[in-house]
Amino acid sequence: MVPRYSRPDMVAIWSPETKFRIWFEIEAHACDALAKLGVIPESAAKTIWAKGGAATFDVERIDEIERETKHDVIAFLTHLAEIVGPDARFVHQGMTSSDVLDTCFSVQLARASDILLADMDALLDALKKRAFEHKETITIGRSHGIHAEPTTFGVKLAQAYAEFSRCRDRLVNAREEIATCAISGAVGTFANIDPTVEEHVADALGLKPEPVSTQVIPRDRHAMYFATLGVIASSVERLATEIRHLQRTEVLEVEEYFSPGQKGSSAMPHKRNPVLTENLTGLARMVRSFAMPAMENVALWHERDISHSSVERMIGPDATITLDFALARLTGVIEKLVVYPDNMMTNLNKFRGLVHSQRVLLALTQAGVSREDAYRLVQRNAMKVWNEGKDFLEELLGDAEVCAALSEDTLREKFDLGYHTKHVDTTFKRVFGES
Amino acid sequence: MVPRYSRPDMVAIWSPETKFRIWFEIEAHACDALAKLGVIPESAAKTIWAKGGAATFDVERIDEIERETKHDVIAFLTHLAEIVGPDARFVHQGMTSSDVLDTCFSVQLARASDILLADMDALLDALKKRAFEHKETITIGRSHGIHAEPTTFGVKLAQAYAEFSRCRDRLVNAREEIATCAISGAVGTFANIDPTVEEHVADALGLKPEPVSTQVIPRDRHAMYFATLGVIASSVERLATEIRHLQRTEVLEVEEYFSPGQKGSSAMPHKRNPVLTENLTGLARMVRSFAMPAMENVALWHERDISHSSVERMIGPDATITLDFALARLTGVIEKLVVYPDNMMTNLNKFRGLVHSQRVLLALTQAGVSREDAYRLVQRNAMKVWNEGKDFLEELLGDAEVCAALSEDTLREKFDLGYHTKHVDTTFKRVFGES
Amino acid sequence: MVPRYSRPDMVAIWSPETKFRIWFEIEAHACDALAKLGVIPESAAKTIWAKGGAATFDVERIDEIERETKHDVIAFLTHLAEIVGPDARFVHQGMTSSDVLDTCFSVQLARASDILLADMDALLDALKKRAFEHKETITIGRSHGIHAEPTTFGVKLAQAYAEFSRCRDRLVNAREEIATCAISGAVGTFANIDPTVEEHVADALGLKPEPVSTQVIPRDRHAMYFATLGVIASSVERLATEIRHLQRTEVLEVEEYFSPGQKGSSAMPHKRNPVLTENLTGLARMVRSFAMPAMENVALWHERDISHSSVERMIGPDATITLDFALARLTGVIEKLVVYPDNMMTNLNKFRGLVHSQRVLLALTQAGVSREDAYRLVQRNAMKVWNEGKDFLEELLGDAEVCAALSEDTLREKFDLGYHTKHVDTTFKRVFGES
Amino acid sequence: MVPRYSRPDMVAIWSPETKFRIWFEIEAHACDALAKLGVIPESAAKTIWAKGGAATFDVERIDEIERETKHDVIAFLTHLAEIVGPDARFVHQGMTSSDVLDTCFSVQLARASDILLADMDALLDALKKRAFEHKETITIGRSHGIHAEPTTFGVKLAQAYAEFSRCRDRLVNAREEIATCAISGAVGTFANIDPTVEEHVADALGLKPEPVSTQVIPRDRHAMYFATLGVIASSVERLATEIRHLQRTEVLEVEEYFSPGQKGSSAMPHKRNPVLTENLTGLARMVRSFAMPAMENVALWHERDISHSSVERMIGPDATITLDFALARLTGVIEKLVVYPDNMMTNLNKFRGLVHSQRVLLALTQAGVSREDAYRLVQRNAMKVWNEGKDFLEELLGDAEVCAALSEDTLREKFDLGYHTKHVDTTFKRVFGES
Repeated sequence: MVPRYSRPDMVAIWSPETKFRIWFEIEAHACDALAKLGVIPESAAKTIWAKGGAATFDVERIDEIERETKHDVIAFLTHLAEIVGPDARFVHQGMTSSDVLDTCFSVQLARASDILLADMDALLDALKKRAFEHKETITIGRSHGIHAEPTTFGVKLAQAYAEFSRCRDRLVNAREEIATCAISGAVGTFANIDPTVEEHVADALGLKPEPVSTQVIPRDRHAMYFATLGVIASSVERLATEIRHLQRTEVLEVEEYFSPGQKGSSAMPHKRNPVLTENLTGLARMVRSFAMPAMENVALWHERDISHSSVERMIGPDATITLDFALARLTGVIEKLVVYPDNMMTNLNKFRGLVHSQRVLLALTQAGVSREDAYRLVQRNAMKVWNEGKDFLEELLGDAEVCAALSEDTLREKFDLGYHTKHVDTTFKRVFGES
Repeated sequence: MVPRYSRPDMVAIWSPETKFRIWFEIEAHACDALAKLGVIPESAAKTIWAKGGAATFDVERIDEIERETKHDVIAFLTHLAEIVGPDARFVHQGMTSSDVLDTCFSVQLARASDILLADMDALLDALKKRAFEHKETITIGRSHGIHAEPTTFGVKLAQAYAEFSRCRDRLVNAREEIATCAISGAVGTFANIDPTVEEHVADALGLKPEPVSTQVIPRDRHAMYFATLGVIASSVERLATEIRHLQRTEVLEVEEYFSPGQKGSSAMPHKRNPVLTENLTGLARMVRSFAMPAMENVALWHERDISHSSVERMIGPDATITLDFALARLTGVIEKLVVYPDNMMTNLNKFRGLVHSQRVLLALTQAGVSREDAYRLVQRNAMKVWNEGKDFLEELLGDAEVCAALSEDTLREKFDLGYHTKHVDTTFKRVFGES
Repeated sequence: MVPRYSRPDMVAIWSPETKFRIWFEIEAHACDALAKLGVIPESAAKTIWAKGGAATFDVERIDEIERETKHDVIAFLTHLAEIVGPDARFVHQGMTSSDVLDTCFSVQLARASDILLADMDALLDALKKRAFEHKETITIGRSHGIHAEPTTFGVKLAQAYAEFSRCRDRLVNAREEIATCAISGAVGTFANIDPTVEEHVADALGLKPEPVSTQVIPRDRHAMYFATLGVIASSVERLATEIRHLQRTEVLEVEEYFSPGQKGSSAMPHKRNPVLTENLTGLARMVRSFAMPAMENVALWHERDISHSSVERMIGPDATITLDFALARLTGVIEKLVVYPDNMMTNLNKFRGLVHSQRVLLALTQAGVSREDAYRLVQRNAMKVWNEGKDFLEELLGDAEVCAALSEDTLREKFDLGYHTKHVDTTFKRVFGES
Repeated sequence: MVPRYSRPDMVAIWSPETKFRIWFEIEAHACDALAKLGVIPESAAKTIWAKGGAATFDVERIDEIERETKHDVIAFLTHLAEIVGPDARFVHQGMTSSDVLDTCFSVQLARASDILLADMDALLDALKKRAFEHKETITIGRSHGIHAEPTTFGVKLAQAYAEFSRCRDRLVNAREEIATCAISGAVGTFANIDPTVEEHVADALGLKPEPVSTQVIPRDRHAMYFATLGVIASSVERLATEIRHLQRTEVLEVEEYFSPGQKGSSAMPHKRNPVLTENLTGLARMVRSFAMPAMENVALWHERDISHSSVERMIGPDATITLDFALARLTGVIEKLVVYPDNMMTNLNKFRGLVHSQRVLLALTQAGVSREDAYRLVQRNAMKVWNEGKDFLEELLGDAEVCAALSEDTLREKFDLGYHTKHVDTTFKRVFGES
């Protein structure tokens, strides 16, 4: 966790204080269920809620106990006993550490997912707003970094919206994957704790019971979760890369907002760099990389080992905190993005009509020219534009073979930009449900 | 694609013959829609279906043309024109190569997914069958590779069943991710092709139209697909690792089936090695690794670049072929797995009752001993079993402090194995819906 | 292995024929040493060399035997016995399969490395040639994709040369890592085979004896090897990305060579796309991804398991074949790269002198203006150029505060391009040892 | 950075205080060189050293300035000016932020490497000590987790020693990769700063000048560095996995030291789990994963972009801190490892002589039996041992076909354990240079 790439709400989820509070709630809810079953006295459950609920857990003290016992849950339970008194012996009956740790991790990841979903909604809002704003802003579409045919800047943003809508759906699935509760005791047999306790705790915490935990919640769930974050990060990278490209000096179709007082370079005062989106591409690399150790965590030995724990202590906070920060940063970039429609049009016209080459090609074939001949005819005129700076329409009008197939009017009509934007409404309807 | 890790049905999906056949169908379905729109003659569409449908595409000839044009789709279309004759000029009207390539890739991945789903069903069947067979086969549960408490071998397999059920659900989601069709022309604007063509082709091929393709189907879909395969491979690794562990000489609770004639070692004739599951752990590493380049493919430049193509030419076949092989191999391993219940019981008894330590601990606390004291009492007797080879029950019966809290009958009752299996039915009902 | 990304010499290293030939040589060299020790008859060693050396191993037949024995080395030895006759019983004395397999893999990787080193030399030659050709070709240097200060195209290529020189050194190290020989028998104790046999075979094959193999050559060596290929691939990606950027329509400072007959787009005849370098970025993703399973291969269980084998059957060929192809393709791209110095100059002048801003900044501070004031003065004039299309020098000359610090002559001198290239010789001498 | 997996010396390298101190030294050394060249006054350089050298940089204050300027180096220079006074305007002349940042990162990574090298030396010492202690401790060697042939525990540790010796060499190479200095100004042309400044700073900081930096030190160096750490982590995983295996209940040949007061399980008091080595396998997954984003960092755009920065802010500290912790933890595990030679011997004898099967096989072939027949003879007796619990030697002595080829004395001699350890000296001499 790097403070400069962190936001407080997400950081709070991963604090020791939050963790111990969730541990307490898991134990206390379990006590309720155990009391209902008559395994422990009702009065004990009440005392535990009353004293533990009012207490502030002392992280320093728990750490101190852990240094001796080398076991974090035992350290916490010992501290809890200091707070609760004799009734503390009814806590954790028939449970194992993993029941507490894994269920807590589920709660933390579910809460983290809720923040990420809210981040995603804000990003989608920003994308939608800017997409409609630039629905008709003509810009050149590019394949291979080379000018292809006209599109609109709004369509670019609609694509991003559709992509992040998918990411949102994936995140909902991922949240569901990890929102399970295990209170099943040693190796998950419920030998020492009734399955109804698990059901009660799950319900109280907004989780589902894990169908078969083997002391731990199976890690394929978490692998899927972190892999999903990796895919989302890759979509962040895609949009960030698009902006970095559009801001490069020779293109300059958009710019990240540059605040007064901001300095682009210690040496070159004129520089306005796309540093936010560059930063996002780096952050995406990190979030993506966490998918790999999460997948390696799946193959725990037998019913469980503890090798996953160190990985999750790192990637649990790092992946969610970094992605939260990245989504928020990306939202800010989109909201404040400075767009230059004039530059878009200047770029589009850079090759004097060449972007219309496919239309001419199609017109030729529709006029009965073979596909191979049509391609050859268009290419020979296109090359003059490309290599000699000629105007494409002028060249075509001067090419006898072309003119034998197409009239001047027909040719001129092929250079109408509106032709390329006629289905923007279709696309917007598909993506936004409205246009 | 390594032949020894490949099965023919999956390999066939990725053959040039299959690919060109799908390309043809995409083009021909598009012609149908274009004919209905009046863009091309109905007769042309019919001729294309008739001649192309009857033809066998000549892979050598297409390769030859590609060597000149350096463009695979143009090479195919040229060859198709050789087959179809003059009406071929109506093929590919308003389309780009990506319309063909990406939609074909969707068809291939969807078909591959269908095979993988069938593989998964076979694996689930095998797991279920063996799980019920060994529902009551007592075995020791292990945490950290150390004996913990008894469970049954059936519960181990039920866990695997639950895990692969989740994997199956994920695969269904992943299939849906990539089953889209794009026939949207250059940079995806539909400028030269009506959106209804896409709808028609999608429908004909069992796909959904891509809401907004930008000449290419967005690669976040494929990233999610390959990441999902990576997670499934990690679950394969988990089960394979379990079997490897259970087969090791000192454990020997199960063995992979060893066919007559098979040789375990060129040097040591007695060896029977878990080579199939070892192989599966290696294959899992490979399938998992493909998630990373798939995620790096997402950030194509602008509307599209072609960098994803080489990656997909490799991981498309390799990931699906390898996972298909791995799932089938794992199914075979499970079906034929030789299980040694006697060895399971011998292992369970290795530490003379120590597996019952938690029950004793709980009984002590329930009898009013503080948790810390109970832990200490159990541990001091457990250490004598561990270090001096004593019998746990005997030691406890000889410990005055223990006996002050628990009667002999109560103590003896704590060593009943049935106690640990009483919720096997619960688990089976949760996992299989029956028990 | 995808044929379109493969070259025959590298492919040949990984053919079954080559593999069996190397297996034979390992066995035959071992026989020589065993004969010298008197373990087997000298005549047997001679017969083995004579008959095996003259034979062509029948891959089909070996596969057939393997289908029964499920063991590849035993299958080969059985086939060898068919060729050699009774003396074949002296083959493989005291050895294990891994002695053959691992030493063979070393030979294959060493030969693959030799090809890669030759590829690298060809690439370095091409880079050097083009670097000297464009040593003084002025171009704009860019940070963050934004114009920074002038440099030369030769310096760009010198950087690539320096980077690939490092990659070459790394490859030499990586080759040394894997060029070891293990003939140490079961679990590597030399119980059944004298260590001098290993020394003899190692020497005969140009390898070093593995200090302590445990039946297998330790896989940290191979992890280092494939990780190194991954780093080299990342450098390929860097240079390919540079070219892709320089070829984009708005920049157009270089172009990949576009052969007559080549078609850039099935739909847009004017397109000339940087498809080779795009392809290289995809291939780089693949080679890089192989580092991960290679690292996961290190932690074999105990003295050895076989999980690494399936991984290596894939990444051994795939990583070396793909990198060989990529290096050769990159060399071709560099050799034939079309460079447009005029466009470089046009781009450099796009912001009318702004690239000289740092020099002005420094001149101001050297003239006694505080760093903060100087920055402010430069930035305010720079912004007029950036936003209003003004000429930077004109603006500065019209800024009273600037002129109070710097004379017109001094200001004009700051716009001399030669200033930026004065240390090109230094850089070239450092990189090439000459300038 | 997770405190529980961190050690203070390594953490200190990555503190803001250390970073700003190194930044200051880079700037101050550069001033010395600039003063020598006459670019700035000698007195200024002296003042800068005097005031800056004595100062404690105020991290809070620098952060505050950065919040306005959004540029960390400018923030530091502004703060430095507050400390140094008017002479501060001579600081950073002709330099860019990257000169400071990248050279500082080199210093930090070089210092981190020195700690890691010391860690490695401590680990090698521990391994050597324990290897000699157990040089003759017989244990079973295992392939595929299955008993193979005897070896010694000392040889196992010698293998680990050899592996970490290679890791040490790799770390030395990796340190050299990143120990370079760049003071080359904007886009690395030395236009505004003489190359001798770089040489001076490099020399003063124990670095080498970067032959051609393009404002940044090329990131292939760092990719190689982090990939090397990933390989080392994989070797940590291998040794940790070995210990986890040897500690499992059924094997129990070694145990991690279990301190008094330590608790293995909150529920099962008898448990002594290999938690340290399990933890190490998890940490290894993390360190390994950092190689991937480091490789993705190589392909910066043009002369540089800033996408690498966020990655390095994370993996710079995380990789070195985690590996430092892991190496130290592993050293502690090895130093205190509890070894059970009796259990090793018990395990070795588990299959009543079967480990000697290969010797019998060889004896048979040397006695003139064909390889295939010998294999069959041995296997049929081996299977009786395996399946029916017979004693291998007894079975062989009762097999007429075997006895026809080998006398009883010869057979008995094949069951001598000393046979397998006769080359332990050879191995030790190769690995340690002594035996």
